[in-house]
Amino acid sequence: MSKKVVLLPGDGIGAEVVREAEKIIAHLSDHYGIGIETETHLVGGASLDAHDIPVKDEVVEACKSADAVLLGAVGGPKWDDYPSDKRPEKALLRLRKDLGLFNNLRPVTVFSSLKDASPLRPEVVDGVDLLVVRELTGGLYFGEPKEITEVNGEETGVDTMRYSVTEIERITRAAFDAARKRRGKVTSVDKANILATSQLWRKTVTRIAAEYPDVELEHMLVDNCAMQLIRNPSGFDVILTENMFGDILSDEAAMLTGSIGMLPSASLGDGTGMYEPVHGSAPDIAGKDIANPLATLASVALMFRFSLGHEKAASDIEEAISAVLNAGYNCKDMSRHARHVLSTSEMGDKILSVI
Amino acid sequence: MSKKVVLLPGDGIGAEVVREAEKIIAHLSDHYGIGIETETHLVGGASLDAHDIPVKDEVVEACKSADAVLLGAVGGPKWDDYPSDKRPEKALLRLRKDLGLFNNLRPVTVFSSLKDASPLRPEVVDGVDLLVVRELTGGLYFGEPKEITEVNGEETGVDTMRYSVTEIERITRAAFDAARKRRGKVTSVDKANILATSQLWRKTVTRIAAEYPDVELEHMLVDNCAMQLIRNPSGFDVILTENMFGDILSDEAAMLTGSIGMLPSASLGDGTGMYEPVHGSAPDIAGKDIANPLATLASVALMFRFSLGHEKAASDIEEAISAVLNAGYNCKDMSRHARHVLSTSEMGDKILSVI
Ligand SMILES: CC(C)[C@H](C(=O)O)[C@@H](O)C(=O)O
Ligand SMILES: CC(C)[C@H](C(=O)O)[C@@H](O)C(=O)O
Repeated sequence: MSKKVVLLPGDGIGAEVVREAEKIIAHLSDHYGIGIETETHLVGGASLDAHDIPVKDEVVEACKSADAVLLGAVGGPKWDDYPSDKRPEKALLRLRKDLGLFNNLRPVTVFSSLKDASPLRPEVVDGVDLLVVRELTGGLYFGEPKEITEVNGEETGVDTMRYSVTEIERITRAAFDAARKRRGKVTSVDKANILATSQLWRKTVTRIAAEYPDVELEHMLVDNCAMQLIRNPSGFDVILTENMFGDILSDEAAMLTGSIGMLPSASLGDGTGMYEPVHGSAPDIAGKDIANPLATLASVALMFRFSLGHEKAASDIEEAISAVLNAGYNCKDMSRHARHVLSTSEMGDKILSVI
Repeated sequence: MSKKVVLLPGDGIGAEVVREAEKIIAHLSDHYGIGIETETHLVGGASLDAHDIPVKDEVVEACKSADAVLLGAVGGPKWDDYPSDKRPEKALLRLRKDLGLFNNLRPVTVFSSLKDASPLRPEVVDGVDLLVVRELTGGLYFGEPKEITEVNGEETGVDTMRYSVTEIERITRAAFDAARKRRGKVTSVDKANILATSQLWRKTVTRIAAEYPDVELEHMLVDNCAMQLIRNPSGFDVILTENMFGDILSDEAAMLTGSIGMLPSASLGDGTGMYEPVHGSAPDIAGKDIANPLATLASVALMFRFSLGHEKAASDIEEAISAVLNAGYNCKDMSRHARHVLSTSEMGDKILSVI
């Protein structure tokens, strides 16, 4: 029973961090006899350069028929001025939509050994372990109309935030299911004092919550959540929110760790899951073998857990990462908080040796 | 040449903090012979209780014909389950719209004596002095359609983010004018990789910026801004952004100080300006004479500066606040960072005595 994993290194440091992931995947596949086959495709700027399109139909099809997709990162200054249908991010949006990846999981954990890396006081971030569950295929990202038109003789931009009950229900269940396996608390974030979508969101979340009597639900306004993430981040377990709010809040939450080079993500739907580090393509450090591969390796752990059904392999990676960090190893981005600074490939090898 | 100021204490601690403001206004009016007349009206929950409507037409008219409006705060648990057209916040929205208050200024200053109050490391927040310029009458707050309807047999919520070039131009000029009087840098925050409104926003801001060659412009994506506000808040001077992003980012920025009980705001348009503390109505501490009136007093300073044309009175208040804080006085919310804890009314008197 073999498995297929599509690798999409993308742009910038994507290739380097995905290369380390490949090593780990190959090792664990052998070790546990999983029989993982990988195939690699172009996305983002790399695909624009080669094929003049952010992602080819064949690539989307290959992803659909795979068991999991691992993405590095897309984008870079080279493509910044491309017209909006030819931007590297379009590849991401198309993959999210076509694979039906409505459920974006972004865990934020402050490793005890790295709490001094945070811009927040160590006592504020110590023990932070939260999960942002972001709706990923609805809201302002995909709603129509989304256009610039002439209204009363002047240019006017319009975007549309739209959510159906079904869309809210399924992401709510995902959040509550996740909370059940964690500390049993969901904070649903909206702007119900202003937005119609948020009123429907709040009503629907409250209704679904009744199916989970063992999970505590609180509602919070998005502006207040932006405050509370700084004031008392340990107060959160699972944060459930819509696409745009999730984009903003998950990045804010990520920065609490002071080490966004280390945070993974999973995007799930009814079919293939996609996994990617939270960081971007970091074109300034690309090709120098200094990028931190840990976020990508942690994403591989999530891939083993959620898409390949192999919890043991997932925890092998996660335990190796903890052990390596506790032993004082890290990459250049975290050099102020490490006793031993490793290159990208050295870090991959280190994790491999510990596994 | 007398001036009229409308006081809208609103709900919760609003009455207490506005009472202290009245003392200061009366004193400075006498002292400088400005001849300020005040009149007080109901808004928010208070108005709902008395008149079953968040704000009466006569009150809106009184505000329109005044030189300035000072608002305490609106809202509280009592009115949380009211239908959406009978919520205290509707008063705020109506006043913003009817007075044309498109320009919301939210200065965030970390007082040196209070840098330990921040959840961030003192060295990260030391010297932070930024201004959020938030567009206040457009975007998702007011765009139509904004409704819950039946689509293909299921409930669907929709909100509309809409901006015309004219709306973007005028808030951009406001931000650049403000930057000129500060450190000469504008960070325009949008989500141009996803939103059509943001693409128009970015294009328009870039064009208007050419009229201000002495002011530096940078563009930043909203998710990145949410990170940078924590990572390096001193990197910001003026943050220019649309309504919803401004709501979230200004609250995040406010929390950097650890003392949101002390932050003022001004909302300006072509007519009457409105001034209010950034904090809410804090129903839990209402009526106890422990609320911090400093945010409201700092808002009064902005009122003297922007609406009453009296810079001297404005700086009198601001200098008194600094002096009182430096001398170790503060209110209960900041008691861990104060040598002397004052009640609401004692703080008002203290500021008065220093002025
Ligand atoms: C690159 C961009 C389109 C994307 C998003 O906004 O979703 C990114 O910020 C993210 O959070 O994955
Ligand atoms: C009370 C609410 C409607 C308001 C807003 O969202 O604008 C508040 O959060 C603010 O920032 O002034």
